[in-house]
Amino acid sequence: MDIPAKVAAFRAGGQDRYGLVTDTGIIDLTPEFGARFPTLQAVIEAGALEEVIAAATGRAPTWREEDVAFLIPIARPEKLICIGVNFPDRNAEYKDGTTDAKAYPSMFIRFPRSFTGHGQSLIRPPESEQLDYEGEVTIVIGKGGRRIARENAYDHIAALTLCNEGTIRDWVRHAKFNVTQGKNWDQTGAIGPWLVPFRSPEQLDDIELTTRVNGEVRQNDRTGRMMYDFRYIINYVSTFTTLVPGDVIVCGTPTGAGARFDPPIWLKPGDVIEVEAEGIGILRNTVADE
Amino acid sequence: MDIPAKVAAFRAGGQDRYGLVTDTGIIDLTPEFGARFPTLQAVIEAGALEEVIAAATGRAPTWREEDVAFLIPIARPEKLICIGVNFPDRNAEYKDGTTDAKAYPSMFIRFPRSFTGHGQSLIRPPESEQLDYEGEVTIVIGKGGRRIARENAYDHIAALTLCNEGTIRDWVRHAKFNVTQGKNWDQTGAIGPWLVPFRSPEQLDDIELTTRVNGEVRQNDRTGRMMYDFRYIINYVSTFTTLVPGDVIVCGTPTGAGARFDPPIWLKPGDVIEVEAEGIGILRNTVADE
Repeated sequence: MDIPAKVAAFRAGGQDRYGLVTDTGIIDLTPEFGARFPTLQAVIEAGALEEVIAAATGRAPTWREEDVAFLIPIARPEKLICIGVNFPDRNAEYKDGTTDAKAYPSMFIRFPRSFTGHGQSLIRPPESEQLDYEGEVTIVIGKGGRRIARENAYDHIAALTLCNEGTIRDWVRHAKFNVTQGKNWDQTGAIGPWLVPFRSPEQLDDIELTTRVNGEVRQNDRTGRMMYDFRYIINYVSTFTTLVPGDVIVCGTPTGAGARFDPPIWLKPGDVIEVEAEGIGILRNTVADE
Repeated sequence: MDIPAKVAAFRAGGQDRYGLVTDTGIIDLTPEFGARFPTLQAVIEAGALEEVIAAATGRAPTWREEDVAFLIPIARPEKLICIGVNFPDRNAEYKDGTTDAKAYPSMFIRFPRSFTGHGQSLIRPPESEQLDYEGEVTIVIGKGGRRIARENAYDHIAALTLCNEGTIRDWVRHAKFNVTQGKNWDQTGAIGPWLVPFRSPEQLDDIELTTRVNGEVRQNDRTGRMMYDFRYIINYVSTFTTLVPGDVIVCGTPTGAGARFDPPIWLKPGDVIEVEAEGIGILRNTVADE
């Protein structure tokens, strides 16, 4: 599946910018649009993603990809919601004595600070050796709403991206309930590499999602097998909270995280993790000790 | 205990403002400081709370309290973290088969959208009759940091406020784990009425916290009995995430929420809920159906 267009947030020349990523380099959009839309998040909030893509198309690249540092595409969303157990066999990995999924999806919230951009290192803190990966398809809301009907849900998505929803496993169940702590260590996950405009249902309905560590496939599944599909997630989340443009929803990971192995295989400095989805791209990160 | 000073965010004359609340009215600080600090959150982020208080003291009031609509003091914190079970006897209320608290506090995240200001109505949605109250002391971070030592923790607090951490009970355990949904319905809780500058440990160490519904005391305890005290909370949270000025931490509720009664007593339209703490004030809200 072709990638329709790729718009990235990045830092170059001492400034945060955004631009269209092409095979020969990045076409900087900040000079033309920066006054109207200071950030890629502002582009999304203004519903202007297609406008900036159209303006850039055909221009000569401004930056070489190797000369920029990618940033997370939406730096400060009002909401950054992660869906828990959402692929077959994944429920069993929790080993918590429950045998089947509940009627509704589990979800938790992460702070943007817990993520870094494409190409950067995930940080393993001195407090834990249990840094783990989770590859996930991620949607960015373009049109807000409350109690959005399933049949209209796709109209509310502006763009797609990927997430390595990196986790400090031994802090996930540190307390009596909730996974907040283990999911919110600074810079333990990544979002990117860029935003891809969402134009057609085939971009989400049944795409392949793969996570590799040092080239070895660890997770591989298709979004068509998700227990709670994208339409349902938008409908369910918008029941209790008003979605707004720029909100980010990380939609769940297939089986095969490092915690699944016996003994578990945690990430270590120097590892390279790639999260890939058809039509979106490859989010690649390394690991470094703090 | 006297309240040292009260600085509120509010809407009046068609504009969001902030000012010093006095017995005879509110001294608007926006005309003088609005260019430097557009919001009360910006005042906190700049470490300027004492400066704006000093500038206002002694001036004539600009607005009568009854002519303004109070807003939540920090409109868009980078983080809004709530501590779960944190008072004796409260663990038992969970009725989940566990008998004792874990070594570390449970915590969850709420979106500012789930809160309203002092004097406004909490909204009961058509999807549930189980709107419940939780009165809590709330701290606002003034100085950021990571891995903040217990003994220095109080240096990182800029201000105190109160929270009615209103909850839709039947959505708290909608899913396999986490309480995200039941804690994040739009406008089901409140924060306020104002910020009180934190100047002395006695303002937190052992203050009385009370919640009343229609004048009847439902929750009453002292912060000296918290299982995880304020210093510990700051130390623990800053282990995994870098705290920044403006971050808000809601520190847990005493026993006596409506879910505790048999049968449970849920909030209903017209109810008046007051959360009061010594030296901070009274956060008062009504309830309305959506």
